Order: sequence, then C-alpha cells, then structure tokens
Amino acid sequence: MTETDAFGRRLRLGMVGGGGSSSIGPSHASAARLDGRWELVAGVFSRNPERTRQVARDLFIDPQRAYADHTEMAAREAERPDGIDAVTICTFNETHYEIADAFLAKGIHVICDKPLVVNREHARALSARVAETGRLLAVTYTYSGYPMVRMARDMIAGGRLGQVLSVQVEYSHQYQTQAFGKKEWQHDQTKAGALGVVASLGTHAFHLAEYVSGLRVEALAADLASLRNPLDDHVNMLLRFEGGARGALWTTSIAHGCPNGLALRVFGSDAAITWHQEHPEQLTFTASGQQPVVFARGGAGVSAGAKAASRIPAGHPEGYLEAFANIYSAVARAISEGRNTADNGDFPTVHDGARGVGFMFTALRSAGAGSMFVPFEL
Amino acid sequence: MTETDAFGRRLRLGMVGGGGSSSIGPSHASAARLDGRWELVAGVFSRNPERTRQVARDLFIDPQRAYADHTEMAAREAERPDGIDAVTICTFNETHYEIADAFLAKGIHVICDKPLVVNREHARALSARVAETGRLLAVTYTYSGYPMVRMARDMIAGGRLGQVLSVQVEYSHQYQTQAFGKKEWQHDQTKAGALGVVASLGTHAFHLAEYVSGLRVEALAADLASLRNPLDDHVNMLLRFEGGARGALWTTSIAHGCPNGLALRVFGSDAAITWHQEHPEQLTFTASGQQPVVFARGGAGVSAGAKAASRIPAGHPEGYLEAFANIYSAVARAISEGRNTADNGDFPTVHDGARGVGFMFTALRSAGAGSMFVPFEL
Amino acid sequence: MTETDAFGRRLRLGMVGGGGSSSIGPSHASAARLDGRWELVAGVFSRNPERTRQVARDLFIDPQRAYADHTEMAAREAERPDGIDAVTICTFNETHYEIADAFLAKGIHVICDKPLVVNREHARALSARVAETGRLLAVTYTYSGYPMVRMARDMIAGGRLGQVLSVQVEYSHQYQTQAFGKKEWQHDQTKAGALGVVASLGTHAFHLAEYVSGLRVEALAADLASLRNPLDDHVNMLLRFEGGARGALWTTSIAHGCPNGLALRVFGSDAAITWHQEHPEQLTFTASGQQPVVFARGGAGVSAGAKAASRIPAGHPEGYLEAFANIYSAVARAISEGRNTADNGDFPTVHDGARGVGFMFTALRSAGAGSMFVPFEL
Amino acid sequence: MTETDAFGRRLRLGMVGGGGSSSIGPSHASAARLDGRWELVAGVFSRNPERTRQVARDLFIDPQRAYADHTEMAAREAERPDGIDAVTICTFNETHYEIADAFLAKGIHVICDKPLVVNREHARALSARVAETGRLLAVTYTYSGYPMVRMARDMIAGGRLGQVLSVQVEYSHQYQTQAFGKKEWQHDQTKAGALGVVASLGTHAFHLAEYVSGLRVEALAADLASLRNPLDDHVNMLLRFEGGARGALWTTSIAHGCPNGLALRVFGSDAAITWHQEHPEQLTFTASGQQPVVFARGGAGVSAGAKAASRIPAGHPEGYLEAFANIYSAVARAISEGRNTADNGDFPTVHDGARGVGFMFTALRSAGAGSMFVPFEL
Repeated sequence: MTETDAFGRRLRLGMVGGGGSSSIGPSHASAARLDGRWELVAGVFSRNPERTRQVARDLFIDPQRAYADHTEMAAREAERPDGIDAVTICTFNETHYEIADAFLAKGIHVICDKPLVVNREHARALSARVAETGRLLAVTYTYSGYPMVRMARDMIAGGRLGQVLSVQVEYSHQYQTQAFGKKEWQHDQTKAGALGVVASLGTHAFHLAEYVSGLRVEALAADLASLRNPLDDHVNMLLRFEGGARGALWTTSIAHGCPNGLALRVFGSDAAITWHQEHPEQLTFTASGQQPVVFARGGAGVSAGAKAASRIPAGHPEGYLEAFANIYSAVARAISEGRNTADNGDFPTVHDGARGVGFMFTALRSAGAGSMFVPFEL
Repeated sequence: MTETDAFGRRLRLGMVGGGGSSSIGPSHASAARLDGRWELVAGVFSRNPERTRQVARDLFIDPQRAYADHTEMAAREAERPDGIDAVTICTFNETHYEIADAFLAKGIHVICDKPLVVNREHARALSARVAETGRLLAVTYTYSGYPMVRMARDMIAGGRLGQVLSVQVEYSHQYQTQAFGKKEWQHDQTKAGALGVVASLGTHAFHLAEYVSGLRVEALAADLASLRNPLDDHVNMLLRFEGGARGALWTTSIAHGCPNGLALRVFGSDAAITWHQEHPEQLTFTASGQQPVVFARGGAGVSAGAKAASRIPAGHPEGYLEAFANIYSAVARAISEGRNTADNGDFPTVHDGARGVGFMFTALRSAGAGSMFVPFEL
Repeated sequence: MTETDAFGRRLRLGMVGGGGSSSIGPSHASAARLDGRWELVAGVFSRNPERTRQVARDLFIDPQRAYADHTEMAAREAERPDGIDAVTICTFNETHYEIADAFLAKGIHVICDKPLVVNREHARALSARVAETGRLLAVTYTYSGYPMVRMARDMIAGGRLGQVLSVQVEYSHQYQTQAFGKKEWQHDQTKAGALGVVASLGTHAFHLAEYVSGLRVEALAADLASLRNPLDDHVNMLLRFEGGARGALWTTSIAHGCPNGLALRVFGSDAAITWHQEHPEQLTFTASGQQPVVFARGGAGVSAGAKAASRIPAGHPEGYLEAFANIYSAVARAISEGRNTADNGDFPTVHDGARGVGFMFTALRSAGAGSMFVPFEL
Repeated sequence: MTETDAFGRRLRLGMVGGGGSSSIGPSHASAARLDGRWELVAGVFSRNPERTRQVARDLFIDPQRAYADHTEMAAREAERPDGIDAVTICTFNETHYEIADAFLAKGIHVICDKPLVVNREHARALSARVAETGRLLAVTYTYSGYPMVRMARDMIAGGRLGQVLSVQVEYSHQYQTQAFGKKEWQHDQTKAGALGVVASLGTHAFHLAEYVSGLRVEALAADLASLRNPLDDHVNMLLRFEGGARGALWTTSIAHGCPNGLALRVFGSDAAITWHQEHPEQLTFTASGQQPVVFARGGAGVSAGAKAASRIPAGHPEGYLEAFANIYSAVARAISEGRNTADNGDFPTVHDGARGVGFMFTALRSAGAGSMFVPFEL
C-alpha cells in the first residue's frame, strides 16, 4: 500500500507505446493527468529499451517499472500490490489485439487507441475476452469527449431535432499531402492493416456520426481511392442509417489546409446542428424556421452531458486534451464503481471499437464490389 | 430609333415570367440594370394579363409592350425597329424549351434560368437551334459570376493547385424543410420535371464543380431520397472526374439553418481552395505545407478574371446581384461583339445548360440502378 | 417630354465629380440604377472636359448634357423641361458647399457625399438653404443603408436592448498604410479640409453610432495622431452620450489587413448587438443570460426596417451597392412624395451631415486641449 | 524523502484559496498537473476548515497537510523535509500581499493570481521582498501563456511588424450584466480593492498589450464608469506608448454575449496582427499590401516561442488550461534552474504584477482628473 492509499488514491496507469515521435503518447499522458484521477507509473514506451528508460525518466516513473516488453509488464504489474489498474495501448494498429488480450488476461483494464484491431476476428475475440474477464476496455475515440459533442447527442436523444433525416460527416486532413513523402507505419499494411485513411480517420468520423445521431449505419457504398499513397487516402461514402436517415462520409489525408477537419452536421425534421472539431466550443443549432443559435460551452442552455464534461467557464477555451481527459476520467469513474460499461456513453467501449472495425471492412467490401451499397457487417 | 440611339445605346431586354412571388424575376431585372448595359422594355410577367400590366407599370415599361403571351411577344418584338435584343426566361422549368425556341426562331437572343430544360431531347434540340440561328443562349448559373469563383477557376487553370485530385461540392438549403408545406410548382412533376433538388440546386453545384475545376464528370453514383417531399429532396453522389480526380456532391432542400449553402472545395497535388457562397468575397488558398491565405476580392494577388468581375474596392461587399450582373454584362458584351459563345467562361452557354440536364438524368439512372456508378451521358 | 413620361417615369439624376480613378462615382451610378428608380442623364464628371465627354459616352448620356462645370450644368438643367430632379455631388470635400448651394438655388435636390462640408459655417449655411428652398439634401452615409443596420436600429428603438449603456464603434482601414505613398487630395488640406481620417472615416463611424443607438454624443475626448501622414491618420476617442451611455470611437487609415473595417457594438441593460460591415448580412444579438443568435438578413425575426431595405432571400448576399441603393431609392421616394425629410431615417439628411461636421471640429477642439473632454458643438 | 525522490521528482505545490465556487482554484490545479511537473500536496482551500478538508480529500491530499490558515501552512511546510516548493495564492485580492509575504519569508516560491495586490505600497514591498529572499514570484496573467500570443510577441520582437504604431486591446465580459445581481467579493471594496473591472480584467488587457508589443505605456486617459455596479464596470482608455505608438484599452463586465472577450490588435509600419482569446489557436498576420495569413498553432511558420508553448499538432485545439499550464511549467523550469526571473517572458514576474497595480492607480488618477492624460506611475 502506498502512502496515498491511506487517504484514498489515484488510479495507477501503465502505457504500452507512445514513446515515438508522434504526440499521441504524451496526449494520453496529459489526458490521464489533467483531472488528477490517474498517475502514470509503468510502461513499455518503445521497442528500444533505452528509449523506454529515457521516457520513464522524463515522466518520473520508477526505472524498475520501465519494462522491456508488454508480456513482462503485464506479468510483473499483475503481481505487484501496487500494480497498475489499467494500461493504455498506443502502439501501431496491428499489435493492439495481442497486447490488449495479454493485459485483460491478467485482469488489467485496457484503454486502447483506435482502430481497435485490424481484422474482424480479433474484434470478436476481444469482445469475448472482455465479457469473460469482466474487465473494461475503452477505445479512445477522443472526439466523443468534447462537451459540445455531448450536447449534440443530448439534443438528439432528447428529441430536439425531431426525426433524424440526414447525417453528414467529414474528416479531412493533410498528413499525407506529400506524395509518398512519409515512410511511416501508416503506409505499411503489415503494421497499419489493410486500410489507410478509412482506419486512421474514417473510424473517428463513423463513431462520431453514430454516437451523436444515436443511429446505426445499416448500409454503405464506398469509393476508396489511393490518390497519392499506397493505401486509401481519399474516400467518399454514401450512408444509410436505421430508420431511413441518409448521409455521407468523406475522409481524406491529402487535404492541404485541413489540419484536423472533423465536422458533423445532423438535420432532423424539427431542427439541425453543426459542429466542427477545430472550433469545438461552439455548437450551432437551428430550429425549423428560426435563426441559428450559437451555443457556447459553459453558457446558457447547455445540456447536462455537456456540463458534466466541462471544467471551466464559457469563453475560456477547452480543447482536445480536455476532451481526451473526459474519456480518462469516465474510465476512472467506471473502474471505481466496478463497471466495465460506459455510463450514458461517457466513454467508447469494446463494442464501439468492434463497430469501427466492422465499418472498415464493410467499406472495403463495397469498394471491392464497384462501390455498390452493401449491408453493414460486424 | 430611340433618342438614345443617337449616342450609342443600352441593349433592350424582354422578360417572360418573373412576376410571381419569387424574387427571381426582380433579381434578373436588378442584375440587368446594375451596370447600365440593359434596359428592360417588354415582357409577359405572368399568365394573368392584369398582373403583367401591373408589373410593367412598376417597371416603367410601355403598356403596349406588356404582352399576353410569349408567342405574341416574340412576333411583335421581332417586328419593331426598337425590338428587344434578348429575352430573359424565368418561368417554371417545363416551359423553358418552348419559349426559348420561339424567341431563337425570331432571331432574339435568350437568357434562360436553370435547369435549361426538363429532358435531354429538348436540350439537344435547343443546342441545335442555337447553332442553326447563330443566336446566343446563356444559362444563369449565377454563382459562376462571383469574382472569387473566377479566381478559383483562374488559379486551377493556371496550375496553382497542381493536379486536381478531389472536388467536394455541396448545396444545402432549407426551402423544403416544412413537410409538404409548400404547394409550389417545384413539387409538381408536370411543371418542375422528374427531378426535384437535383434540378433546382444540384445543377448549380454540378456546374460550379466543373466550371472551377476545369474537369468534366465522367461517372457518378447517386443516392436520391425523398425524405419530406414528393420529389427528391436529399441527394448524395460519388463523383469521378476525367483525369482521375474523385469527389462528392451533396444537395438537399431540407437543411434547417442553410439559407443558401453552396460551397466548393478543390484539393490538388500542390494546393487547395475553399469557397462558400454565403461569404462569397473570400477565397481561402492553402499551398502545400503552408498556412492558409484568405484572399479577399479586390485585394492583393487577385486574379485577372476576378478583377474583371469586380466593381468596388475590397472590404465593400459585393454579393449575389453583382455576380448575377456579371452574367448579364458578359452577355451584353458578347452580343455587342457579335459572338454567341462565352469569352473565357464569362457566362454559361447552352452547352453548360445541356450538361446540367445530362447530370440530372445520369443521377436518375444511377438511382434507378441501386446507386451504382454509371457513366455521365448528355 | 420623353417617351417614358407617357406611362410614368424614372427620376432624372445628374452627377458632379465621380470621373476620377476612385470607385465612388461608379458606385453612386450603380446604386442609382439598381432599383430602376433613377436614370443618370447629365453630368460634369471631371474638370477635364474631354474626360467628362468620355465618361458620358460610356454611360450613354447625351453629349449635350456633358457640361463644362457645375454652374453651367445647374443653369441649363434647370431650364430644360426634362431637366434633372437631383444631382449627386462626389467631388472632393472642399467643393461640396459651393456646388450643393448652386443646385439648391436652382431648385434641384442634392445628394452629397460625406463629409458634407469642411467647416461649420458652411454646414449652417447649407442647412438654412435647404430650409429656405424646400429642396432635399441627402448625405451618403452609405452604411446606414444596410438592412442589418436598420434592424439594429429597430431593435434599439423598440426597446429590445433595454437602456443603452455602451456604444463601441470603430472604422479601421488600410488606405494610407504606405508612408506618404499616395499623393492624393486626401493629403491636401486645401482640398480635404483640416481633418484627415476623422473626416473620411470617422464621420461614417460617428453617424453609424448615433443612427443605430438613437442617442446623441454630448461630449468627447479625442487623441488625434498623424503617425504616417500629414493629416490625422489614427484617432481614438472617448464618447459620452445623452442619457449616460459611454463609448469609444477608433478610426485609422494605417491598419494593414483592414480593407474596410467598420464595426459597431451596442450593449444595453437587457441585450447587446454586434455588426461588422465586412460581413453585413449578419447581426448578432445576445439577450441577457442567453446564447447569441445570428440573425441573417432575410431570415426569421428580421425587423420591418430591415425587410424594407432588402431585395433578395437570405443566403443570397447583398452588399455595399445594395445598401447604397437603399439611400437612392429612399430619396426617390421622398422626392416623389414631395418630402425633403427622411421617413424614419431611411436616408441621412442635411442635419446628419451637419452633425458630422460638428463631430469633426469637436474632435479637433478636444485634441487642441490636450485630449480633454469637450462638449459636442454643431 | 518520498519514494519518487529516488528517481527524480515532481515539484511540490501548495495552494491558498481556490476552494470556493469559482473555477479559478481547479484551473490552477489542472494547469499545475497537465505537464506532470507539479504535484499538489498541501493547502488552505477555504476559511472554513471543513471545506478545506473536503477539498483536500477530493484532491487525494494527505489530511495532515490540509491547514487551518496560511500562517500555519507556511510554518509547517517550511519545516517538512518534503515541504512545498511553491504556493499558489488564489484568494481575493486584498489578502494577496500578506499571504505572499508570509510564504516568501519562509523561503517558499509564490505563484499569485492577479491583480498582484490592491495598492502600490504593497506592490513595492513585495518587489523588495522578492529581491531580498531570492525567491520567485509569478503572477498568473494566464493569457500570456497562449502559444499564438507568444508568436505575436516573437513577430514584433523580430521586427516583422516594423515600427509598432498602434496597439488596440479590449477585454469585454458579461460577468456583471445583472444589475447588482451578484453579491460577490468583487463588489466589495474591502475585499476587491478600490477598482472593479480595471483590476479584474483591465490588468490582463494591459499586461497583454505591453507583453506582446514590447512597449511600455507612458501615459493614459481613462473614462471610468460604474454603469450597473458599485465599482467601475465599463472603462475606455486612451493609451500612449513609449516610442510614440498610440492605442486604446476597453474593458467592461456588462457586455452581454462576451463570455471572455480579450482581443489584441497591433499595427506596425510593415504589418499587423490580430488575436482573439476566444479563438486562441489562430493569429492573423497581414503584411503591408498583402492578403491576411491565418497562422494556426502547430502549423508552418510558427515561431520558436509558440512551438515551445505547444503540446499537440495543429488542428487539435489547445485552450486556456494549456496556456495556464505553460505558466506553471515555466515556473517549474525556473525553480529547477535556480532562477527567480522569467526566461524570455515565459512567465509574468513580480515586476509585471507591480506594473498592473501601477496601471490600476494611474487609471484612477486620470479618472479623478476628468479623464485627462496622466503619466504612468508605478
């Protein structure tokens, strides 16, 4: 028992991956720290042990808890009385399955980056493992953590839009605008999986669309293109949702001028909402026959879900790390309460992760069939 | 010969339609007047002769030139020494063909609202009639008259974007957000033709995409839906352009909060541009690896085509009527110079009108085939 | 009697000035034409008779009505049975008084650019002449013609803001960003008058503030600076309004990146409004404790005054020329109805012009007194 | 020595205040945690000991380090081998001096909310105490922590704007829009000091203007008004900077629709910049005669200072807590390096705090002299 246990304690977090040049590891760490509910105490930050030790040092982590590989880490942490409560996985896609499975097997909760895994068999197997172990598996669809995304979801769930008729979602990015310029794992099917931008960005957009609308995609038609990169880098899809709503999804990694252009518009029989990730503090709402109201996080009329996901007053911008922290804090709450499911969607679960994988391979199937509509399959 | 002929004169314009409750007739009239190159001197403004006389009176038009129908008007104006040089047609879609044909047959130039006609046979016949008579037929795809649309086109034609890779266009509107609420001719196939929003808005979006990109659509896959209205009111399409560029087109008339949401984004190998009709004075340009520059009409670095389409300094907003007037003034120039073709795209011609009709029926064919990709057909 | 007199007619307009390189002459002409209530039939467009003839030719004006100077023009037009109803004066500031006086003396209405005149004696004299002749004198404070400015005024007049507490107005521009770069009449006290940016931009801002708030400035403290130009080019003022409202006015001509940055914010006890000239179609309104509503011209809840000043539906941008045309059409209405006063502020009168001159010299007086507060004097 | 000391450690932080209903205490705590350089281990969160114990429990703080008052805390922490390195003071203004002095006297570094103190004598005394003890005193002018504020400062320091000519700053807020509605300490001179909005918001705006421009205010003329509250709630000022630049400062707490409207515009001889706190990720830069470039944090061409203050890629919004964390992390760096001064302005010091107090009383002096210009006095 550590000293802090005497008067309650933060949950203990480990991390696998995150020591590379990308910002995703530090983002997980910042997100975990922000609300003071987690302390990061163990990790395998790189395949290079020296790099792992260096990251651990920078993070004030006990060098004995800087491990050589995730197998050792899972075994040793499971044995410690002060072992980690959960592990964050932010390695490349292809390795997610094995690592997540290893920690779940040791009774350690898992927080996994997206896409959950790179094939549907692994998605099914992980879902089964979660059920069997009673552990929690959260997938960091970070954008669902934004307060105004929560408000959009609350408004739709509360009937403010009437019947949802149309869901238009897009995620445009510029990370592959240089033709074959980046020799990264995202270009390597053995590491990234069979899909490019559909996996890296499309799954975020897909999750956001279903999360906010409350509707599941039933069928889609996908035009996948590899315009400048080995894997798909420009994709337009036609979407059909349960209940008859229509929509489209566009995602690309070759869009100059789009640093992180995730945006959602939902049109219902009675009203519509618009949200842009690059200006996440505002949600524009237009009721039928009315002028638009620009709801600012923290201001009047904001929904309970948005308030619960908010820290500071309106006009003091919150951003990506705060949204990310909402996922981490919700996971901490669930663990503390002995749940392995989300409370009103406050974090994405293994089921959301599996739907993302289903989305990827449904898109691939449509593309293989000349972009015909095909039914969604998990 | 009128008094003004002694020292040069404005061209004389007639109008068929435009006397109803819509603003499209007055918009044509204002656009024609703005630059002082036209005077409106004759018309059939309504099927109701009393209404026609009243509109004529309001417009200071000689009552003898307020006609009962377009046949009489074409015949009488063709006989007058001071007869009209051109006629504007802004009646409902189904009547365009017959009226345009009647004036062309009398040697009178035609300015026709879009869609040009409601079937491909009429499109072909009008094209032939234009060729045969040597008269000019302009189609008011008004949005192509905006200076910053001209700049976008100039930039792409000049190679500033490199190879065009992606063209995303949308036109969202709220004019049919009330379920079956409006008993207008747009809901009546006998007046509007077989297509709803594809014809009324989609043809604008389609023209803008081809006009700016300089590329023709080769194939499309269309998901047409009639969510709240008898004819299609929500349409998503996958687009394939000559040369390999991909894209999408979304148009709908049921989008609360979208008064006139036409927007275009084009991504090339070297740069990208974004333009929104509701803020038409700005064109955002982002070169590869650079931060976005917001070009304002009238400011530094604006293209020759944009300057030629501009009247007043930057910061003094021009708008829809000015864009519309650019079409009218270009037509006046063409007539004065004895041309019946556009000069570097300064107004849309019968060929653009025919492509719009081809677009409508290609979309219908794809929808009939389960939203499969089908080749574009004129 | 012209042919058109037989069935009603447009009013006949003359112009003095406007043939130079600036866009202000053509803007007056376009504004006059837009709604079809005026025809431009006479003018002295330049001190250079050849230039006047050329402009007249371009405008299809009878060469006999292209005059050598305003004295001849006033005399000859007053004699013609089809003489002009009104004259537009868009020469440099110092000449306004003499020209306006000459036309008023001949019974011809006057539309004069701002500032009305360059000293208070002339302002008083012109006011007297207007009263004596019963003619109308309108001053083209163009920005008061925007529909959403009218809506702001209507909201305040209707009590929607409660008691007005604060009025912040600014007009930032870049026309003198080049140090001594432009050898224009604006730099020459003998042509522009004693004041620089206070006259050219400040009078617009001052008029807008009083027009919208419905309150008169009672005292001001002005910090005039000539940072890069012979006359004042950067001015901040503290304002005190009747009834206790406070405010500030900032204007400058050396602001890179500000093509025409006129903006107004009014805060009341119950609500606030914000309007920016470069995006004139929107008026943001925030009621106490509520989220902001972005009113778009043409949309729901727009005031009667805004509707009356509007031509086309929401989402189809109107701009500067449309605002300008609202002044011209209101003047035409007043003349037709035999009034020489504005109807509910639909055009600025000689009294508004005189207040602008009072504003200029009150600012100069404060600056001369070490930027102390001084009472407003006409 | 705690366990973590064995392998390096986070700095230890205490807090006085911050347990009330405002978000400022939690914001300090989150900011301290975000980068993992601080742990919050002790505090007096309220005058109510039970409230202090409850906050400590929520923060997983050892109950023995939840103190009754700041005197006890300073004494006891100074004695502990694992005592706090620094204390955050976020009590009401009037108490800052005594508390800061008590901790400095015990050799503990101080991080103090603004305004530093409520009179100039205390400002001078604290400055002397800092010099004498060699401890560090940082003032949380949080907004100077934003990356794009750092970029603005870097651009000006690097000469990109040429000579600074004009500095316009504003801070509009709605926290006192309800007339006398809030019975808070901000309304009570015995707690807040003699100044209202000048102290609470004006000091932020003043610091931002000087911090970014690199210029000191030499004289100002202030129009203080108490329009709806006992203390000043609406203030316009004319500013004169060293070197001849002019400017204005507007701040108010009665502005409906302004959740936190801090904005800065600086115009130089060669270029201009604009920054708005509510959209802090963008800095608009316009070079003379060019179109504006919208620099996004994390994107191309961003300055070294901005990069150093940035965590995640462009398009992933950072916000207020990240800016705040930049202050905390810079203080941690300074302490680790044995400095008590900022490194290139990476946190505001006691000198900045003292200038803020000087600003408050210079404004009061001008107001007392009929809003005349008065020289700035510390």
